[in-house]
Amino acid sequence: MSGLSHFDSDGKAHMVDVSDKPVTARTAIAEGYIRMTPATLALITEGRADKGDVLGIARIAGIMGAKKTADLIPLCHPLPITKVALDLTPDTTLPGIRITATVKTGGQTGVEMEALTAVNIAALTVYDMVKAVQKDMEIGGVRLTFKDGGKSGRFENP
Amino acid sequence: MSGLSHFDSDGKAHMVDVSDKPVTARTAIAEGYIRMTPATLALITEGRADKGDVLGIARIAGIMGAKKTADLIPLCHPLPITKVALDLTPDTTLPGIRITATVKTGGQTGVEMEALTAVNIAALTVYDMVKAVQKDMEIGGVRLTFKDGGKSGRFENP
Amino acid sequence: MSGLSHFDSDGKAHMVDVSDKPVTARTAIAEGYIRMTPATLALITEGRADKGDVLGIARIAGIMGAKKTADLIPLCHPLPITKVALDLTPDTTLPGIRITATVKTGGQTGVEMEALTAVNIAALTVYDMVKAVQKDMEIGGVRLTFKDGGKSGRFENP
Amino acid sequence: MSGLSHFDSDGKAHMVDVSDKPVTARTAIAEGYIRMTPATLALITEGRADKGDVLGIARIAGIMGAKKTADLIPLCHPLPITKVALDLTPDTTLPGIRITATVKTGGQTGVEMEALTAVNIAALTVYDMVKAVQKDMEIGGVRLTFKDGGKSGRFENP
Amino acid sequence: MSGLSHFDSDGKAHMVDVSDKPVTARTAIAEGYIRMTPATLALITEGRADKGDVLGIARIAGIMGAKKTADLIPLCHPLPITKVALDLTPDTTLPGIRITATVKTGGQTGVEMEALTAVNIAALTVYDMVKAVQKDMEIGGVRLTFKDGGKSGRFENP
Amino acid sequence: MSGLSHFDSDGKAHMVDVSDKPVTARTAIAEGYIRMTPATLALITEGRADKGDVLGIARIAGIMGAKKTADLIPLCHPLPITKVALDLTPDTTLPGIRITATVKTGGQTGVEMEALTAVNIAALTVYDMVKAVQKDMEIGGVRLTFKDGGKSGRFENP
Repeated sequence: MSGLSHFDSDGKAHMVDVSDKPVTARTAIAEGYIRMTPATLALITEGRADKGDVLGIARIAGIMGAKKTADLIPLCHPLPITKVALDLTPDTTLPGIRITATVKTGGQTGVEMEALTAVNIAALTVYDMVKAVQKDMEIGGVRLTFKDGGKSGRFENP
Repeated sequence: MSGLSHFDSDGKAHMVDVSDKPVTARTAIAEGYIRMTPATLALITEGRADKGDVLGIARIAGIMGAKKTADLIPLCHPLPITKVALDLTPDTTLPGIRITATVKTGGQTGVEMEALTAVNIAALTVYDMVKAVQKDMEIGGVRLTFKDGGKSGRFENP
Repeated sequence: MSGLSHFDSDGKAHMVDVSDKPVTARTAIAEGYIRMTPATLALITEGRADKGDVLGIARIAGIMGAKKTADLIPLCHPLPITKVALDLTPDTTLPGIRITATVKTGGQTGVEMEALTAVNIAALTVYDMVKAVQKDMEIGGVRLTFKDGGKSGRFENP
Repeated sequence: MSGLSHFDSDGKAHMVDVSDKPVTARTAIAEGYIRMTPATLALITEGRADKGDVLGIARIAGIMGAKKTADLIPLCHPLPITKVALDLTPDTTLPGIRITATVKTGGQTGVEMEALTAVNIAALTVYDMVKAVQKDMEIGGVRLTFKDGGKSGRFENP
Repeated sequence: MSGLSHFDSDGKAHMVDVSDKPVTARTAIAEGYIRMTPATLALITEGRADKGDVLGIARIAGIMGAKKTADLIPLCHPLPITKVALDLTPDTTLPGIRITATVKTGGQTGVEMEALTAVNIAALTVYDMVKAVQKDMEIGGVRLTFKDGGKSGRFENP
Repeated sequence: MSGLSHFDSDGKAHMVDVSDKPVTARTAIAEGYIRMTPATLALITEGRADKGDVLGIARIAGIMGAKKTADLIPLCHPLPITKVALDLTPDTTLPGIRITATVKTGGQTGVEMEALTAVNIAALTVYDMVKAVQKDMEIGGVRLTFKDGGKSGRFENP
């Protein structure tokens, strides 16, 4: 199965051997959004003052989700994450919330999965907290936008 | 914060009290996709015979992800899930993989979050397993399509 | 070892058999505090407007901690928690933060440990978030104040 | 929010970037107690011979709790812990159990939270195992007594 | 794939739908052993007095392992376990430790996997604690000896 | 308790201090089997074509189990695993499935427990998936066959 490093030459899944890869500084940035009606979005943005803070809770869930990545994704290596930051920005033209996650580590593999997982869990948490008023929200646009460090070098996907 | 049941009257987040809700049969179905190039999709579908089984592994990850929902989503109730099934179907017109998750429980709250989480974790697992050949795949269209059981009754979002 | 139900007649630890106990509505309330200098407390309370929300994050950590109780306490039964609410109140006379957690379930054993765990994890989270400015804070007064449901009935510890 | 490093300049919570901090040897010691009646304490200390070993089980729970710290405390970095030791000592003048936890790592951040978490989980486990005979025990005095390693250097709080 | 209920008619793995099965009292008993040299066994049994309690710690690990079964075994249903008890008995004729685990629940599926997991985790914990003196111990004889409750009724495997 | 490094000089369990051990490349290989009837084995091997893939799922469960080792075994150090591979081979002379797990890390302690845990969880997963047709299967022969790296050097147990 040429190219798919998660499988050995017999096609059996394994956690790839990274023992001989050097420990380097690695960064990954992922983004995504959750689309909703203007009325639902207004409920969230009103809440940011001192009432129920949907975006603050989703940010925490995203950070904690990044730490659980190796537990969730079967062939992912456990990594000592050194930074996780999430940005959740209301966008009235979407309308909805745009989410960006930045993750760093010093390790032998990258943190793409951690950044993508953080975005997904934050989006799911927004969904959970406002589903009482809208059930047909949609999570989309989840993708890696930047990656640096490691043998494959810099990747940009603006 | 009218309508957002995850917050009390002071706007403080809590896990909603469902103690007095009856235990009823509940079902939720969610869907989503991961879009990729035709070449990446071909690598996955070739693998289905007896070589590396990307979709089989993503299915397992989705099922296990559904069981971790209350661990990932801060205000979600733990629930005794009674069924999880995932369908991952290659779609050459996307191109990519379409994912559907069906979750059931007999409980006091619904399993919408479990179904959505299953779809998201399955999609992330597909991403992880083929990212060596394509990094700009995109996860999208993640939404609830069906829900039944509980006070709010049936919801359909075809 | 008369009285200690977590041990059998030979003194061996076990998870007590509650199979024949009826499922009843159960509530537990626990409290505790974290004591700090007036200056540290001021940093937290200033943050409540729209800046860093220490108490909001500690509340979420306490709720998630309650859900992990059976994972943390060796002989605790897993329970389908139906409500968790935390109250974190700044008290300038302490000075510090007073924490109260209320947990409910319909189950065969009580939720005392869940309420106490929620208080402790919330207090630890406050510590973590402000330890950059004060390291000698102290967590104390962690105790059960109320319990109802089950064979042993109501317990009040005001 | 000057001083609170867990928040960025806009007051948003993040897991602080420690990527550029050197890996150094780090130690943290925390202590706490659980207070009970002399009769309850006697039940525990009698058990130490070869019957139900409350303190041995609480020690194990504390060690396992230290390993779960990054899972429990939202903004805590995962760390490769290299040592955890707990001391649980009956004190008839308290009366109750005094708990001390020592944790070490070679890492980019300290292990204060791991030591404090170990103390708290051990105390909660003692509570759980003897609550059948006394429900109004109290956990208190939980604080960091020693810390060494890292930029902020040695901290002593005797 | 006739007979293997964990697969649907297309051979795709799923968590079997047990929604319509009645909640009944269920028990499962499993056993196994870890074989070692007489000298290693002597080190363990000497420790039982008031020194290092290998068997007591393995018992706790087995109980906690039973609670993690649905997290470890992909297609296992989460269940509200109502009892876990482990017996670890030194056997000089083996020589080694014989382990038995009894698990109960009131649920829609059985607790065979919980009992087997408890035995395995307890055996692994014994291995971990004495591997400094013997590395070629062997875990074996892990099997279900009794099961009751549910549609398939009583199973005995003495 | 001479020789048992998991206990201090008073016989109290601790997570051994490995702070001063060098980080070295470490490998461990473990094996085991699950024995069943020829008819059960045939059901599994038939499934390998494109129907229900018992061995593929057990392989994933073993890999994920290896990552949970420090969570399951009380005194195990958390380690940044750099490789996990499992081999599950049908053996008609057993009859049953032979399982081998290879784990690597660069760390301060070895990965023997990770390899043994991977074998055990994979075997339990096979049991779970075919227990509908045979309940008296037996897991055995679980032992460490190879270990390299660290102060104690190479160990071979063919």
